Amino acid sequence: MVNILKFFLPKDRIFYSLFEQASQNLESISGKLVLVVNEADFNKRAVIIKEMEDLEHQNDDLTHQIFIELGKNFITPFDREDIHSLATSLDDICDYIYASAKKINFYKIDPNDSGIQKMADTINNAVLAVNSAVKELRNLKNTQKIVECVIRINSFENQADDIFDLSIEKLFDSDIDAKELIKKREIYQTMEEATDKCEDAGNVIESIVVKYA
Amino acid sequence: MVNILKFFLPKDRIFYSLFEQASQNLESISGKLVLVVNEADFNKRAVIIKEMEDLEHQNDDLTHQIFIELGKNFITPFDREDIHSLATSLDDICDYIYASAKKINFYKIDPNDSGIQKMADTINNAVLAVNSAVKELRNLKNTQKIVECVIRINSFENQADDIFDLSIEKLFDSDIDAKELIKKREIYQTMEEATDKCEDAGNVIESIVVKYA
Amino acid sequence: MVNILKFFLPKDRIFYSLFEQASQNLESISGKLVLVVNEADFNKRAVIIKEMEDLEHQNDDLTHQIFIELGKNFITPFDREDIHSLATSLDDICDYIYASAKKINFYKIDPNDSGIQKMADTINNAVLAVNSAVKELRNLKNTQKIVECVIRINSFENQADDIFDLSIEKLFDSDIDAKELIKKREIYQTMEEATDKCEDAGNVIESIVVKYA
Repeated sequence: MVNILKFFLPKDRIFYSLFEQASQNLESISGKLVLVVNEADFNKRAVIIKEMEDLEHQNDDLTHQIFIELGKNFITPFDREDIHSLATSLDDICDYIYASAKKINFYKIDPNDSGIQKMADTINNAVLAVNSAVKELRNLKNTQKIVECVIRINSFENQADDIFDLSIEKLFDSDIDAKELIKKREIYQTMEEATDKCEDAGNVIESIVVKYA
Repeated sequence: MVNILKFFLPKDRIFYSLFEQASQNLESISGKLVLVVNEADFNKRAVIIKEMEDLEHQNDDLTHQIFIELGKNFITPFDREDIHSLATSLDDICDYIYASAKKINFYKIDPNDSGIQKMADTINNAVLAVNSAVKELRNLKNTQKIVECVIRINSFENQADDIFDLSIEKLFDSDIDAKELIKKREIYQTMEEATDKCEDAGNVIESIVVKYA
Repeated sequence: MVNILKFFLPKDRIFYSLFEQASQNLESISGKLVLVVNEADFNKRAVIIKEMEDLEHQNDDLTHQIFIELGKNFITPFDREDIHSLATSLDDICDYIYASAKKINFYKIDPNDSGIQKMADTINNAVLAVNSAVKELRNLKNTQKIVECVIRINSFENQADDIFDLSIEKLFDSDIDAKELIKKREIYQTMEEATDKCEDAGNVIESIVVKYA
């Protein structure tokens, strides 16, 4: 039914395009997070974080546009609540990635921390899988590819949980000062939440596949 | 369509009235938060916080009534999910404001903290803008006024973010004891979340305007 | 209407069965949490937590099945959004209970802490009330029994709030090391959130009663 309607109402294709722009944007911002956690120079970090801020604003605008289109269009390519949830998840991923970078700079964290570096790689991997899944939404027939992406997203989220647990254990076992501990714990947590939001996006995409494929 | 139905079904006006009572209540409780953060006497603070508790219970009751009406009424003045989200946001704002005051008293925080005082003023300003927007819902034709309120809410939320960042930076740079740092950080965070919830309310109101105005 | 449809579409009964399995599972996992907080031997604790992990995986699978059924079935015994919210709440309760136990073991917390023990009992009581309410969903005519369960859930959630406040107050007044304080505070918070999620489940159940009973 959706496909027939699409023929008469090409306007609903706008959603695919907006989602693809948002998830492509996520790939750019998570790539920059990897740069930030490997950069010791605070000034160079600040430049990258400025670029991340611009990407974050772009994502805010895209999310806003999706909500506006949702308000205007009675016919949508999939359930309205799924469109709303997916847009919210992609926006949340972006917010947590940007917040992670901001906190790393703000707290003047030494980048030479293997927990933080592994976490950034894991976020980046999860985001690549989210982007692949979003690109497949236009052609829901390739169910297997989407399901594979969702499985990959979930496995990166589990990986982030393990990195988090190990990092926190190391932190409490070390003789680090309590204030420094609070800072690092907050960064690990924000980074781990970025992968939770990737899992949320994966869950919405899976529910779309179940209904429409 | 909404207006025609309203003529036949005046019962749905109950929603406007409940929302207005809830947002008017928010104005009272946020005004009292400003008093709390400027009051050094713990006993006098406790009296104000007791009044805030009563207002918080009133808001719980109003939210509950909105959900009951939503269950009973098939026809609603705007989307059921928007009514649900707006009621939840207004209730959340109230909860965070009350929690902020409770924590300030509970942790025996010295009110002479410019971060906390600025944060209370910002929450109060955001709540005034929420209340103005809610009052305009009855007459959705005045789109521009509502949009202005939403812009104001968002700018106060940004302001709260900045106050939060600056306060946390000052906190970590000071020689404050780690336990005291934990307390203050929790208060800044709870206050900042109150403005996030104002932004949520603003987002729902904006989406109602897009659909119905 | 629901009952007539059910006659023709017995398939929607699958939802009752899945919800009952999930809430019965919750009873098992919260019973094990009570064992964990009364067990001083770290190895014995680890065995119980492994059993809790299995229960948590079972609940993940049940939640997933509910979402799959929701995607496949056009007719559902009550509102789709209520089914989604209830499944999410039951899953969240399970996650927070499991996380509480994991953190207690992870941080090597001395079980001889009356706050943690009282909190575990309160969670268990709230979960028993959730399970009773879920069992009544098949026969929505027994409104009074469900309403009583919801009232009980809310009163346990209030009790958990009080235990939390008292425990945190004691913690900050003690001469505990800041790092240990951070650990215990995190555990109290995770446990308190488990009861918040019970309240969420109660709210959804109440809204189902309002609409269908």
